[in-house]
Amino acid sequence: MKKMMLVYAALILAFLTYVFMYRLEDRRTSAWEEGGLHGSIGENYVMVTFQSGMEYWKNILKGFEDGGDALGVSVDYRGSTQYDVEEQITVLEQVIAKRPAGIALSAIDSKALTSTINKAVDAGIPVVLFDADAPDSNAYSFLATNNYEAGVAAADKMAQLLGREGEVGIITQPGQQNHDDRSEGFRETLTQRYPAMTVAEVKEGKGDTLVAKGAAADMLDKHPNLKGIFVTEASGGMGVADAVIGADKTGEVAIIGFDTNKGTLDRISDGTIAATIAQGTWNMGYWSLQYLFHLHHGLTVPAPTLGNDVSPLPTRVDTGISIVTRENVNDYYAK
Amino acid sequence: MKKMMLVYAALILAFLTYVFMYRLEDRRTSAWEEGGLHGSIGENYVMVTFQSGMEYWKNILKGFEDGGDALGVSVDYRGSTQYDVEEQITVLEQVIAKRPAGIALSAIDSKALTSTINKAVDAGIPVVLFDADAPDSNAYSFLATNNYEAGVAAADKMAQLLGREGEVGIITQPGQQNHDDRSEGFRETLTQRYPAMTVAEVKEGKGDTLVAKGAAADMLDKHPNLKGIFVTEASGGMGVADAVIGADKTGEVAIIGFDTNKGTLDRISDGTIAATIAQGTWNMGYWSLQYLFHLHHGLTVPAPTLGNDVSPLPTRVDTGISIVTRENVNDYYAK
Repeated sequence: MKKMMLVYAALILAFLTYVFMYRLEDRRTSAWEEGGLHGSIGENYVMVTFQSGMEYWKNILKGFEDGGDALGVSVDYRGSTQYDVEEQITVLEQVIAKRPAGIALSAIDSKALTSTINKAVDAGIPVVLFDADAPDSNAYSFLATNNYEAGVAAADKMAQLLGREGEVGIITQPGQQNHDDRSEGFRETLTQRYPAMTVAEVKEGKGDTLVAKGAAADMLDKHPNLKGIFVTEASGGMGVADAVIGADKTGEVAIIGFDTNKGTLDRISDGTIAATIAQGTWNMGYWSLQYLFHLHHGLTVPAPTLGNDVSPLPTRVDTGISIVTRENVNDYYAK
Repeated sequence: MKKMMLVYAALILAFLTYVFMYRLEDRRTSAWEEGGLHGSIGENYVMVTFQSGMEYWKNILKGFEDGGDALGVSVDYRGSTQYDVEEQITVLEQVIAKRPAGIALSAIDSKALTSTINKAVDAGIPVVLFDADAPDSNAYSFLATNNYEAGVAAADKMAQLLGREGEVGIITQPGQQNHDDRSEGFRETLTQRYPAMTVAEVKEGKGDTLVAKGAAADMLDKHPNLKGIFVTEASGGMGVADAVIGADKTGEVAIIGFDTNKGTLDRISDGTIAATIAQGTWNMGYWSLQYLFHLHHGLTVPAPTLGNDVSPLPTRVDTGISIVTRENVNDYYAK
């Protein structure tokens, strides 16, 4: 009887061992032999911006979170509350102190954050930049809209709306690189592709609804044949819409705006603004997370001696744009 | 006694059930709850080039294969054997007929493949382009070197080698876009950043070792103070090296070449060529595979109505460059 019990006990022990070994083997199989990219929930990737309440960041964070879900890792969001360089540096220092698996940063200033970024990279924390670059830093990649190409797309859309002819105007912020790039892409495309179209005037809108409204009203007054206005940012777009309504020219003057804040989308829904350029914000967040994951796990280009002269990742990513019109505007309202 | 045996049998059965259930649960956990990106071995992604024997494709294919391993999917390689437009179209048609999960293509001609590419996209087969674009096609993305930026990097390296002063020459293929971009990035960077450096002459090398050798010999003869030559492709680089050896100026004239064929690497090892620009070829292959995987599995930007005006993926990716010198040349020989 005692002998039998020992035999059964041995059998049970064998099974327990089998269960335990099986578990180990299964883990290894799913991680290696079947392939697949997945991290652990303990890996924490942090997205850092300035003006953390801004509507614009929401869809970038959505992409960052979706990337985290896809790869089974954790994400966090931090940002300075104000448009304040020192505050963003402090926030970035705090994030670095927690030693996250990676940091995706939109730099409020192209120079001021360089040494803090390099501090993170030197400490072995991968950093990528999105939307706003710090080109002298050692961050591994920059993911953003190619603003010149966005201007090209706006020009092609304007040409389509106006049957490839007529006078148009631009309201922008001269001297700011991203806005200058948008204007230049727009102007050069009209010159090169649409000989029957001309830019009648370029005016300063200061990124302000009232200033842009005044500028657009002047423009409409001075150029009675004006058939379209391209405005390179969202607040100004609202002002241009107000000016066109004020001049009783809704539907006669095609407005193309930029970005997809609620005000712009409402003006597309009611027909005042013809189209707006939506930036590939989800892509900025999603592919930033992917790049950080690849850096953290050493999955980038297998170069044994990585120095400053070697790019382990694509260095510059044009995250693309989409054109929003009345037909697809409902897809762009925040869900 | 029989009662005891029944109790033990029941216990053993319970363990067997536990093992089985555990296995099921573990599978599900690793596939869903923990996240992770992995496909199935039945998913086949195909890389298509022209001149399939060319050394240049090897590292791109390595990246494509590494991407397939990482995501647990199959990859294949097809290419026309010759530099022949019609042959590449035929190869692409054959690949489409097998309905792969995705196609990464380097287009031999920027126009001729457009309708075949669109046929694949219309049939629901995702296509991305790498290295050589077909800009009018409906392919989802283009991953390649930004040649202007590669020229900028060559200029910065040349300035470093020459102590920021002296006369230099360029040997290139005027009229070919990628070579013109490299030359322009090089020239404009010298003008903007290095006032004590000048471009003495730009000569045609025709992508041929002997022609480039002759051009470089003339240049060295005509400009005795020449301190450096930037040559925008690999065959010409060999010729320039021969000319510098022939003029007995090894070490006096700094040569910066392009790409990493064995001949160039050997000339870096022996000190004739100072540096060469390595393109981010592994990145072209790896991220092409990633993009196709994301398109195949519907993991791109969640926009319900994808039309031609919507970019589900980053549209243009600069895959980056690396600078190869005697210090790191051994990492670039094919393993």
